[in-house]
Amino acid sequence: MDLPKHGSNPKYLYQKMNLAIPEELIDFSVNLNPWGPPIKIFAQWDQWKNEIIDYPDPLGQELKIKISNKENLNLDQILLGNGAAELIQLLAIHFREQKIGIFQPTFSEYERMTSAYDAKISYLSLDQLSKTSYIKEVTQEQVAIFLCQPNNPTGETLSQRSLDKLLKECEKNNCYLIIDEAFYDFSLASHSMVSSIKSSQYLIILRSATKMYSIAGIRLGYLFASAELVNSLRAYQSYWSVNALALKMGEILIEEEEFVIETQLKIAKIRNHIFPLLEELGFLLSDSQVNFFLLRDPQLKRQKELMVFLLKKGIVPRHTENYPGLDGNWLRFAIRPFAEMNQLLEALEEWKRN
Amino acid sequence: MDLPKHGSNPKYLYQKMNLAIPEELIDFSVNLNPWGPPIKIFAQWDQWKNEIIDYPDPLGQELKIKISNKENLNLDQILLGNGAAELIQLLAIHFREQKIGIFQPTFSEYERMTSAYDAKISYLSLDQLSKTSYIKEVTQEQVAIFLCQPNNPTGETLSQRSLDKLLKECEKNNCYLIIDEAFYDFSLASHSMVSSIKSSQYLIILRSATKMYSIAGIRLGYLFASAELVNSLRAYQSYWSVNALALKMGEILIEEEEFVIETQLKIAKIRNHIFPLLEELGFLLSDSQVNFFLLRDPQLKRQKELMVFLLKKGIVPRHTENYPGLDGNWLRFAIRPFAEMNQLLEALEEWKRN
Repeated sequence: MDLPKHGSNPKYLYQKMNLAIPEELIDFSVNLNPWGPPIKIFAQWDQWKNEIIDYPDPLGQELKIKISNKENLNLDQILLGNGAAELIQLLAIHFREQKIGIFQPTFSEYERMTSAYDAKISYLSLDQLSKTSYIKEVTQEQVAIFLCQPNNPTGETLSQRSLDKLLKECEKNNCYLIIDEAFYDFSLASHSMVSSIKSSQYLIILRSATKMYSIAGIRLGYLFASAELVNSLRAYQSYWSVNALALKMGEILIEEEEFVIETQLKIAKIRNHIFPLLEELGFLLSDSQVNFFLLRDPQLKRQKELMVFLLKKGIVPRHTENYPGLDGNWLRFAIRPFAEMNQLLEALEEWKRN
Repeated sequence: MDLPKHGSNPKYLYQKMNLAIPEELIDFSVNLNPWGPPIKIFAQWDQWKNEIIDYPDPLGQELKIKISNKENLNLDQILLGNGAAELIQLLAIHFREQKIGIFQPTFSEYERMTSAYDAKISYLSLDQLSKTSYIKEVTQEQVAIFLCQPNNPTGETLSQRSLDKLLKECEKNNCYLIIDEAFYDFSLASHSMVSSIKSSQYLIILRSATKMYSIAGIRLGYLFASAELVNSLRAYQSYWSVNALALKMGEILIEEEEFVIETQLKIAKIRNHIFPLLEELGFLLSDSQVNFFLLRDPQLKRQKELMVFLLKKGIVPRHTENYPGLDGNWLRFAIRPFAEMNQLLEALEEWKRN
């Protein structure tokens, strides 16, 4: 069955599965912060209406200055994108027709985009990442490797030590390490690799403003890398690719540090409450540190029957059919406010009773 | 001198030219409809604030249905883009490393993008487009040719007959004809080639919503071509590339037919009023049918001195340094409301008096 490639827009999932759409839906398929956007965004909304008229600043200078101050980077080490998705596309273009490794299971756009640009793709194993011989071998073979950290769809996080070791091996073997940090700010224990950008020519970091700040509709992502690589990528980018509202919002959002901390605490609290209850019901869970997790009923292989059961109740999980290594054997759920998590819990209890 | 590549964002022009920015600016460098956006856009503004949260519809289905009805096209013959600029990028990717012809002088993004993707670029001559032998030769040599129609920066328009002849020759020689119709709706005498999409595998049409409707900040463009080509281009496109607000606005704007006609009439009226006055002052003008025109003082070669004179007065022309064939020997001005055109006229009178 050809299910939608991503979460969100649940109508396409119901269509593909030939199910009627219930009147009320709770969308657990999309990994956005349910407490976003920060209220400042809506407070400024009316003033921004004139921003749509003229062309955006093609350099996004004001936003880049704020990012460079916050992350302690040079301006020329930052590239803004029309969502992180565009930055993945630019990387796929840059590394076209070359050998690309992707640590699986993970976000499917790395593979979709690099294969559109004729990369030779290898699936790499996260389980073996601790073995020095393995990371030596893969960084010798590949031109670039994609690692999502914390990982989507598991929510699991590697140690700083493991990441440092991997980067070191990449540098030895002239292999680019692309770390997608789209969800790093959801974790209380988050560590970013950004401080290594200045010292490493081979590190590339992707960031997304759409998840933490719930502005997926307006599209905003950043990439950090050496000035040389940023320059090459920018040449491939279409002009005015980041819209004017995204730039304005970015300037506000980057200062919303309290909002981020509050979100981290709320997510952790709900996770700590709900995970034991789900395990008591007999479900298996991924060891997530962030705002989504994998779940499976060990009494089923493919989880399709459970998915249909939930969809009929208006509870929308994310299928895992297009995650190599998961192959539909898990479902992904976003962490949402308590009331909605309780509805999920009730539905799963009912499933287990029947 | 490395002047900005495009109009709009005049601060960069003043910076590059080492001039102080006057308190009041009139930006004639940007080709947007000065009466836009239509009021309906602002009337809906408040309702749209929640659109920014969730991911956009990756297919843009609602907007595509409206376009297909209006233009009498199949849904699969339409590709939405993050501005026409992204669609030019996708074409540059599709035709990468191949022979591309560009009718010059014209919009510089065709060359910037195709050369970023290693095309072998030839400059084609608009003056020779009426010669059958010439169009035969170029369509035999090139894989695809770019033609902006009405042309930016001249505002001049070819006859339907010329375009039909060119398309026929393209088809004979398996050469793609890419017609950028970004400004076709500003002309009273506009003719689009859209009705030939269904019958021609070799025709590609670009459209922009940003110019007529003044939504350059939010980015929205369309491409019309065969279903097969649309499919190939979409595979190269990043996911969710058209933001949710652009989709919503597009759905409203496509129905604003009266606004378009009113704009056409206003532009024609101002053009008919101002062109004879400028010619009386001794300036040469392009034969524009749309909302911008080229102007030169025949007593200068490069027009830099005139440009500096105007910039100091807060009147911002578009330089033509990066238009092959114009090479700075002309300045481009947008048509703006009467009051602003009169300020331009006064400044040019003063220039002529000194």
